Amino acid sequence: MIVYFDPRQTLHAPLRELHNGEWVPYNEKPDRVKHIAGQFPALKVPVDHGMGPLLAVHDARYLEFLQTAHSQWLAAGRAGDAIGYTFPVVRRRIADLVRIDAKMGQFSFDASTPIAADTWSAAYWSAQSAVAAVAHVQETGARSAFALCRPPGHHAGRDYMGGYCYLNNAAIAARHAQQLGRKRVAILDIDYHHGNGTQDIFYEDPDVLFVSIHANPQTDYPFYWGHADERGAGDSNLNLPLPHGTEIDAYLKTLGIALEAISNWGADFLVLSFGADTFEDDPISNFRILHKDFATLSQAIAGLCLPTAIVMEGGYNVAALGDNVAAFIRAFD
Amino acid sequence: MIVYFDPRQTLHAPLRELHNGEWVPYNEKPDRVKHIAGQFPALKVPVDHGMGPLLAVHDARYLEFLQTAHSQWLAAGRAGDAIGYTFPVVRRRIADLVRIDAKMGQFSFDASTPIAADTWSAAYWSAQSAVAAVAHVQETGARSAFALCRPPGHHAGRDYMGGYCYLNNAAIAARHAQQLGRKRVAILDIDYHHGNGTQDIFYEDPDVLFVSIHANPQTDYPFYWGHADERGAGDSNLNLPLPHGTEIDAYLKTLGIALEAISNWGADFLVLSFGADTFEDDPISNFRILHKDFATLSQAIAGLCLPTAIVMEGGYNVAALGDNVAAFIRAFD
Repeated sequence: MIVYFDPRQTLHAPLRELHNGEWVPYNEKPDRVKHIAGQFPALKVPVDHGMGPLLAVHDARYLEFLQTAHSQWLAAGRAGDAIGYTFPVVRRRIADLVRIDAKMGQFSFDASTPIAADTWSAAYWSAQSAVAAVAHVQETGARSAFALCRPPGHHAGRDYMGGYCYLNNAAIAARHAQQLGRKRVAILDIDYHHGNGTQDIFYEDPDVLFVSIHANPQTDYPFYWGHADERGAGDSNLNLPLPHGTEIDAYLKTLGIALEAISNWGADFLVLSFGADTFEDDPISNFRILHKDFATLSQAIAGLCLPTAIVMEGGYNVAALGDNVAAFIRAFD
Repeated sequence: MIVYFDPRQTLHAPLRELHNGEWVPYNEKPDRVKHIAGQFPALKVPVDHGMGPLLAVHDARYLEFLQTAHSQWLAAGRAGDAIGYTFPVVRRRIADLVRIDAKMGQFSFDASTPIAADTWSAAYWSAQSAVAAVAHVQETGARSAFALCRPPGHHAGRDYMGGYCYLNNAAIAARHAQQLGRKRVAILDIDYHHGNGTQDIFYEDPDVLFVSIHANPQTDYPFYWGHADERGAGDSNLNLPLPHGTEIDAYLKTLGIALEAISNWGADFLVLSFGADTFEDDPISNFRILHKDFATLSQAIAGLCLPTAIVMEGGYNVAALGDNVAAFIRAFD
């Protein structure tokens, strides 16, 4: 399978995040993607498709903000990475704000997703990798392509960042597939965490099906979204939360429900948000998927026989990440 | 003027808040209210009116959470004060969440308003002071009463805390005045910061008028609310933002607009959210109200000739706070 990746995706390197009441080292490290990239010697740098595919998903004011936020932070006399501290939880709208701290909160939903000096560049090329994967499948008739996205994307909404995500690579891929002629795009999200940004972007859009298998948000991030009763316009949203300790048998049963929903819906293109943080030894997650299970999962999804763009989401056991991702990707074809 | 205050209001003492990207010492210190209390030797401890007046404003699940949050935090193995890190900025609803970190975000809008061991007790008695002030005015026919509230209240909404606020004392006072027979209650908020919680609580209620004079939210906290175009149901919300550097002459002109609106609306009771952080030397604010101006402001508002419950909000120059508040309160009668 062709694998898209741009070395600039490693430049984004925040130092810390607020988690459970304390600063902790930032979990979404550049090393994650270096380990994965090491498994694929023939990486392809994506062509630059420009801002068009990003603007098809994200608010222009948000994109402008992402590009200038870190400079504004430094200009305001702040040190280190830019981070917000207050958030518009009710009657949210994009107002014309002056102070960078205000803008940080306006365009995000947590104090765990800082903007560092090279965040924009990394996020931009991460999104371009996703666009290139879709273009490759559409233009060459290849069965699938893998965008080694980093930073990940599925927590980012139309005009907000959060959960290590800035640009929603899966949403950008889905819209780009539509742009290139696909009518009914399904997004399957198998990251450990619910893809709240992707859900939100397509929640009122019955032409994109979003199906997610993830840890129960009553106990796990992102908490406020991902509950089973969130169904979207025309039931185009399907959340399948699972409990801590889930092993491959229970996971496969739920995956069967997800795949049947995608098949019944009549999807003509699949975007797969792939997180490897379902792994038993992931440091911030609590499922028990084993290394050998990743090939099983991959083959089950490949059984849909849909043209597929796979975009990388989470996975935080850096030492095991390359092997797990490679096993998944190699089993797909 | 009678002054209500319970010593338990000083027990709430968080150590730090997240501000502009860093932990800073918590600005809303117990010393604030000790300095004010020192100016009023005949402080009256409020009678306990119970949970009824709080439930008239706040969601029962939120009140339950406030009472148990710190214990839950410790039980989860967290240290220090409880604080959230992720916040439901879109499609917010109160879900049945398990993890304390999730609940902290669900019921707040910032990472700057921690819950410490004695937060509930302090907030409860702060609210009871506000209730007692209203009861005093209604039951004795006194012109006014002062609730020396602390923690403050005007940033707290029906089911969320934030901006040092947990229970919305002004809103509780307004609802209690209605409970005791008043029909048209106006809330005038002259704290430096917009009273977003109070606005939100009454935004759809045309029977309570909310008028606020505050720093322009484009530059100042709480940023997302307090803009002039937020008018509420039946134009029952009036925001009058002012720029940095505002002095007494410009302030009085705007206050005149506020008082005229209250008068024209036909209020039969006034709740005054009084912050002394408009003071020229306030450490976190940028107006230029002088010590001598507080008596002027007070007399102008007293000119409405309405039965009035004054509730304390902000003011962070601890050394000057007692003098400024005393000057304001003494000039009111």
